[in-house]
Amino acid sequence: MGKDGFIELSNKRPDVTSPGIGVLGYGFMGKVHSNAYVKIPYTYQSPAVFPELVALCGRNAEKVSDVAIRFGYGGFYTDWKKLVNDPDVQICDNCTPDDMHAAPTIAAAKAGKHVICEKPLAMTVQDARNMFDAVKNAGVKHMLCHNYRFMPAVRLAKMLIEEGRLGTIYQFRGRYLQEVGHDPATFAENVWYTAGTKSGVLLGIGCHIIDLSRFLVGEITAVNGLVKTFNTERKLSSGAVETVTADEVNYALVEFDNGAVGTLESSGISTGRKNQCTWEINGSKGSISFDIEDLNHLHVYLDNGNDVKGFTDVSVTDFSHPLQSAILPPGHIAGWEYGHIHALHHFLDCVVNDKKVEPLAATFEDGYRIQVIMEAIQKSSKHGKRLEIR
Amino acid sequence: MGKDGFIELSNKRPDVTSPGIGVLGYGFMGKVHSNAYVKIPYTYQSPAVFPELVALCGRNAEKVSDVAIRFGYGGFYTDWKKLVNDPDVQICDNCTPDDMHAAPTIAAAKAGKHVICEKPLAMTVQDARNMFDAVKNAGVKHMLCHNYRFMPAVRLAKMLIEEGRLGTIYQFRGRYLQEVGHDPATFAENVWYTAGTKSGVLLGIGCHIIDLSRFLVGEITAVNGLVKTFNTERKLSSGAVETVTADEVNYALVEFDNGAVGTLESSGISTGRKNQCTWEINGSKGSISFDIEDLNHLHVYLDNGNDVKGFTDVSVTDFSHPLQSAILPPGHIAGWEYGHIHALHHFLDCVVNDKKVEPLAATFEDGYRIQVIMEAIQKSSKHGKRLEIR
Amino acid sequence: MGKDGFIELSNKRPDVTSPGIGVLGYGFMGKVHSNAYVKIPYTYQSPAVFPELVALCGRNAEKVSDVAIRFGYGGFYTDWKKLVNDPDVQICDNCTPDDMHAAPTIAAAKAGKHVICEKPLAMTVQDARNMFDAVKNAGVKHMLCHNYRFMPAVRLAKMLIEEGRLGTIYQFRGRYLQEVGHDPATFAENVWYTAGTKSGVLLGIGCHIIDLSRFLVGEITAVNGLVKTFNTERKLSSGAVETVTADEVNYALVEFDNGAVGTLESSGISTGRKNQCTWEINGSKGSISFDIEDLNHLHVYLDNGNDVKGFTDVSVTDFSHPLQSAILPPGHIAGWEYGHIHALHHFLDCVVNDKKVEPLAATFEDGYRIQVIMEAIQKSSKHGKRLEIR
Amino acid sequence: MGKDGFIELSNKRPDVTSPGIGVLGYGFMGKVHSNAYVKIPYTYQSPAVFPELVALCGRNAEKVSDVAIRFGYGGFYTDWKKLVNDPDVQICDNCTPDDMHAAPTIAAAKAGKHVICEKPLAMTVQDARNMFDAVKNAGVKHMLCHNYRFMPAVRLAKMLIEEGRLGTIYQFRGRYLQEVGHDPATFAENVWYTAGTKSGVLLGIGCHIIDLSRFLVGEITAVNGLVKTFNTERKLSSGAVETVTADEVNYALVEFDNGAVGTLESSGISTGRKNQCTWEINGSKGSISFDIEDLNHLHVYLDNGNDVKGFTDVSVTDFSHPLQSAILPPGHIAGWEYGHIHALHHFLDCVVNDKKVEPLAATFEDGYRIQVIMEAIQKSSKHGKRLEIR
Repeated sequence: MGKDGFIELSNKRPDVTSPGIGVLGYGFMGKVHSNAYVKIPYTYQSPAVFPELVALCGRNAEKVSDVAIRFGYGGFYTDWKKLVNDPDVQICDNCTPDDMHAAPTIAAAKAGKHVICEKPLAMTVQDARNMFDAVKNAGVKHMLCHNYRFMPAVRLAKMLIEEGRLGTIYQFRGRYLQEVGHDPATFAENVWYTAGTKSGVLLGIGCHIIDLSRFLVGEITAVNGLVKTFNTERKLSSGAVETVTADEVNYALVEFDNGAVGTLESSGISTGRKNQCTWEINGSKGSISFDIEDLNHLHVYLDNGNDVKGFTDVSVTDFSHPLQSAILPPGHIAGWEYGHIHALHHFLDCVVNDKKVEPLAATFEDGYRIQVIMEAIQKSSKHGKRLEIR
Repeated sequence: MGKDGFIELSNKRPDVTSPGIGVLGYGFMGKVHSNAYVKIPYTYQSPAVFPELVALCGRNAEKVSDVAIRFGYGGFYTDWKKLVNDPDVQICDNCTPDDMHAAPTIAAAKAGKHVICEKPLAMTVQDARNMFDAVKNAGVKHMLCHNYRFMPAVRLAKMLIEEGRLGTIYQFRGRYLQEVGHDPATFAENVWYTAGTKSGVLLGIGCHIIDLSRFLVGEITAVNGLVKTFNTERKLSSGAVETVTADEVNYALVEFDNGAVGTLESSGISTGRKNQCTWEINGSKGSISFDIEDLNHLHVYLDNGNDVKGFTDVSVTDFSHPLQSAILPPGHIAGWEYGHIHALHHFLDCVVNDKKVEPLAATFEDGYRIQVIMEAIQKSSKHGKRLEIR
Repeated sequence: MGKDGFIELSNKRPDVTSPGIGVLGYGFMGKVHSNAYVKIPYTYQSPAVFPELVALCGRNAEKVSDVAIRFGYGGFYTDWKKLVNDPDVQICDNCTPDDMHAAPTIAAAKAGKHVICEKPLAMTVQDARNMFDAVKNAGVKHMLCHNYRFMPAVRLAKMLIEEGRLGTIYQFRGRYLQEVGHDPATFAENVWYTAGTKSGVLLGIGCHIIDLSRFLVGEITAVNGLVKTFNTERKLSSGAVETVTADEVNYALVEFDNGAVGTLESSGISTGRKNQCTWEINGSKGSISFDIEDLNHLHVYLDNGNDVKGFTDVSVTDFSHPLQSAILPPGHIAGWEYGHIHALHHFLDCVVNDKKVEPLAATFEDGYRIQVIMEAIQKSSKHGKRLEIR
Repeated sequence: MGKDGFIELSNKRPDVTSPGIGVLGYGFMGKVHSNAYVKIPYTYQSPAVFPELVALCGRNAEKVSDVAIRFGYGGFYTDWKKLVNDPDVQICDNCTPDDMHAAPTIAAAKAGKHVICEKPLAMTVQDARNMFDAVKNAGVKHMLCHNYRFMPAVRLAKMLIEEGRLGTIYQFRGRYLQEVGHDPATFAENVWYTAGTKSGVLLGIGCHIIDLSRFLVGEITAVNGLVKTFNTERKLSSGAVETVTADEVNYALVEFDNGAVGTLESSGISTGRKNQCTWEINGSKGSISFDIEDLNHLHVYLDNGNDVKGFTDVSVTDFSHPLQSAILPPGHIAGWEYGHIHALHHFLDCVVNDKKVEPLAATFEDGYRIQVIMEAIQKSSKHGKRLEIR
């Protein structure tokens, strides 16, 4: 174009790698991952990669094309088997419903794609094992997308624990509460855990708490579970009534390999709690607490032995804190979406620069272990017994 | 006295009954109860009684006399057997260490005194049973002093639940965290749960959470326990080292007879938590949460279906709220001591005016049931099994 | 009495001085002061004094005798002139309405009594000056009862400032908000600032903010005021309508002699604010904030240069903090009434042990200066000009 | 491309208008606006526009091209005179330093571009007036980018006020506190208000508080100002020392045309406060408070006359609330950047669909009036007099 003084640009930077991304699913998670890919180049002052949004996939062509256009994908597929074999795709990111995690992810790994999968890894321990085996056999990079590990406050917590500033870890107390199903009159299809794959609250959000407890404290060695469904029937908007087997609340008493003990809880019927994912860790020298609905803050108590002692409300928005956005100055709060931006940037960096995905991110191995723990919680509840996790 | 214009007064009001009070123990609880008795006549605009502090009892004459003088007792004893038989004493209030609860309380009941006992009722289920039997047989009034039932905010919560404003109760989540033993270097005699009767955290403060859960939700029918001592040895200031068997943390998953489920926790090693007794209840239509360190507030969520919906921070200091002090106007916060003031006033009112102690206050029957639950938590932890409570 | 084993006690301790107290007024403040006197002997492990409640005074014999009995006074008067000359009274404590502060206090000082007066010292600068002159001339001890100086958190703040831990003080931001008059339909006699002496919000509660700013920051040298009455008429319950001249809201921009600047505000129409007396101080190295409705906590920010930095929520209930009650362990919150307990104990200690009342407590000199500032705020508002305070 | 099953897409949607955007400035604000444009198409389920990022402009070619590539601009300019005449640009968005607001914006308007300008509109009242006149004369759309009006919580507040649910508005209390300059040793070029255009705190952030007060309460009719610089000299990193004339703190007592009164404050030296932009409004029937560092919540008190009354912590993340993102479900918090996304989307919608920019957004007329008020605050401080605003 001959406009005076105008320097035209290509959207690629010759010095930054642009891996091709294929995303399966255009629902909530598909949108959140797409948003993250779009933002990576400018969230980081010096991004490690410029992801290229090669293709989005979904069964409904009209809907998938609407989302694909809005996020700037090169195109779309309606058949996942095609996407996982697209030669322009280096990374296949599975954002489909839980019961669609195994097959496409295994196929993608077999096709040599690096793979990302949304949580929970699978619906069953067997599927999770198969997925883990597939990525190991294929020798591809793999990440289970537990975004909460990539909140700056969670990362700061991890650092404080690793530096020993909390002393010996005694206790973990984690819960994830939502209210979506609290009203028995809400239609089954409007309650995520009784809709779609009907996988329940433990698989849907309880897995986050398990992941955070393992990330921050250590491996879980025993569980004592209690799982319950209060509203065992729900109406559909059609007027039909469904039997509900998905759990609505679940609890576990847990023991960690380092001796710590604690509680895990998730609920879909905690009226008034929109998305309260909160945890507290108590160590012999200090404590930390966090709530995802106040994710720019970490509350830290360190026994400093002086007269100004108490939980300190640390804003993790200072430039000195980990995972800060290039856009946001101190006190300008980052939204929930930043967990995914940082998590996906990390994985792309690992792929492009051949770094290790773990321990900062969860892998399919973590996903498999989490699945084992979730199954143990359900079994423990059924049989009224503590179960060891091997 | 012949001073001009001076009208001399007796400290008794002829129209208000003055039951004689004998208090056993002058430590923390002895002082707190004494304070409550002194304040009753003026905390209430129209007090039901003017308690008369007849006698305090303790083994160390010098110390007991100091406290007795400071609180205005008529005199003191150094032998509890004498106090429980003092004819001027109508109400015997046992504020001694836990292992001294049974014998004097039973003796007082046999002597026809109405009895108050500090929590926990006893060290064992058997003692608790004996105490409950004794008061039944003697036909005297009895109260287990669970002061937290008499916080205005807890009373408001009870009212909201009874009025059905939370709908069906789904979940209870209660914990009582203190930090007193968090540092392994703290001497055993400076940690209340390894000092004195060494009765541990569950008996010491866990009983409060059990009582509140039963008061607000209903009877507990099954427990799944986890009990642990981290610091299994502690130095004394003498340099000697003691083996610690008292629990430092304990958890229970619980089921209630109305179908609700939940978690109970207490800990003496939660660094940074001074006296965090907090609970949350989720029902199908609303939720409530409370923290004893912010006792003038109750956080209430009612699903009102409009655009201003969320947890409401209710200051329970308005004159319209239950249990308001005659002294304190709205926003002038009441201290922790008011739980005891209101609890003891209630019991005195029941004695003087022949009212029922329960359900507002806990009785020895409640104490016995709580003891059964505490024992079940310990057994469940030991055997790794859920236990039904009969 | 010949009861076996019973040691009878006198309520006096021979080794502790018991000054005779005469209190004028039995309303809100009369009760709060009486409560404080009763509690002094046992709030402190080693109280400096055992005050003796000689006499209460009020015009209505029935009402004053009811309160006097309930708090344990020796007797009562219905004529203040008699009380201020009672030879058994060493300390005269004036808790009457604002327009009754001057005459009885001056008379008591002339009679050689040490004097305490509730805030504000007077209705006018002239009366305040007369009162200050009277106590100086009489050579008696004098205290203006600004109880908030005696909150443990405020005392800790004072210590941190004096130790230079906030660096150079830049800003003070104080406000005292109540809602009592927010509804125009509330009857005039139910709104304290339009009832009784009708002295308005600035005199009624604004004086507290001025006192705290002077106590914590320094002398005020200039003010810029804005004073307003929104509801210029109010109904009485009789149906009659009164013209209201008392201010409902007032503001001042202030300058301090040390260069700091800030804002003062008080309001009686801040809907939803029951008793929010809050202030924040910003210095070059740190900041502090406080709210009287959360009085067991002080929020402190110290720029420590490390990665755990933020406002620290300091519970001032540890035994190591100033002004702790002998009754309350860590985390067992103290009520609003403790400000008066500590303030009155301090004054009694000063009287008995000849210590200096200031700078910990406010004196009549402070009261006079506060009165000058209040008058300047009103004048400044009227004339739209900044006024220097000499 | 002939990939099997792949449907290629253009990034334009034929049915949605794509106005061309030219942005001046690639610093903090240039990035924030660019981010907003990128996100508009997918933040909204049905975006009104698909903005096309035609060109970015900055003097340093290397830096501007880096930012332009990362956000996906078509190209860049190094001379603003070229950009404002680019025929592909329909909307010129000025994100340059304050002293560069007037000339390019006026030029753009004269060239027939619709214009957006970052706050404050100008450095002087005269420049602001000229800018307002220019857009009026050119007949173009104009928006002053006061992003905080577009926070969902602020929008909800506006709705509640307009519906009369707070009753008569009595008081506004707004402040904007940052700590950037609190340490006298911080170099002048690292403190935004002493760096660059050195325009000071009132112009830099105080304007936000003035805008919010006018948006929520009404026109300001009189001010009483206090403006101060504590650190009148600052070192540069070069070692040189600069005289600082920019204000560090400023206050105003204000009166509104509807009778309400209040305080405005902004500070750059409030240690510990990163970006605390908070305000409270008290009306005869209710109150609202808000803090930009907790922007997903609005605290609302409505005097509902029942027993559950208090400030309600409303999470504005429900789908039913205004300005919700299509990506974020309830409780998944939105970041600070959403203010700009919504504000810029609004303006683009106004341009494309010929809607009115005001009253939801601020216009250059608002900018001019805010400039008049800021100047009056400075003059009032200098002369110690209340000034009427005409």
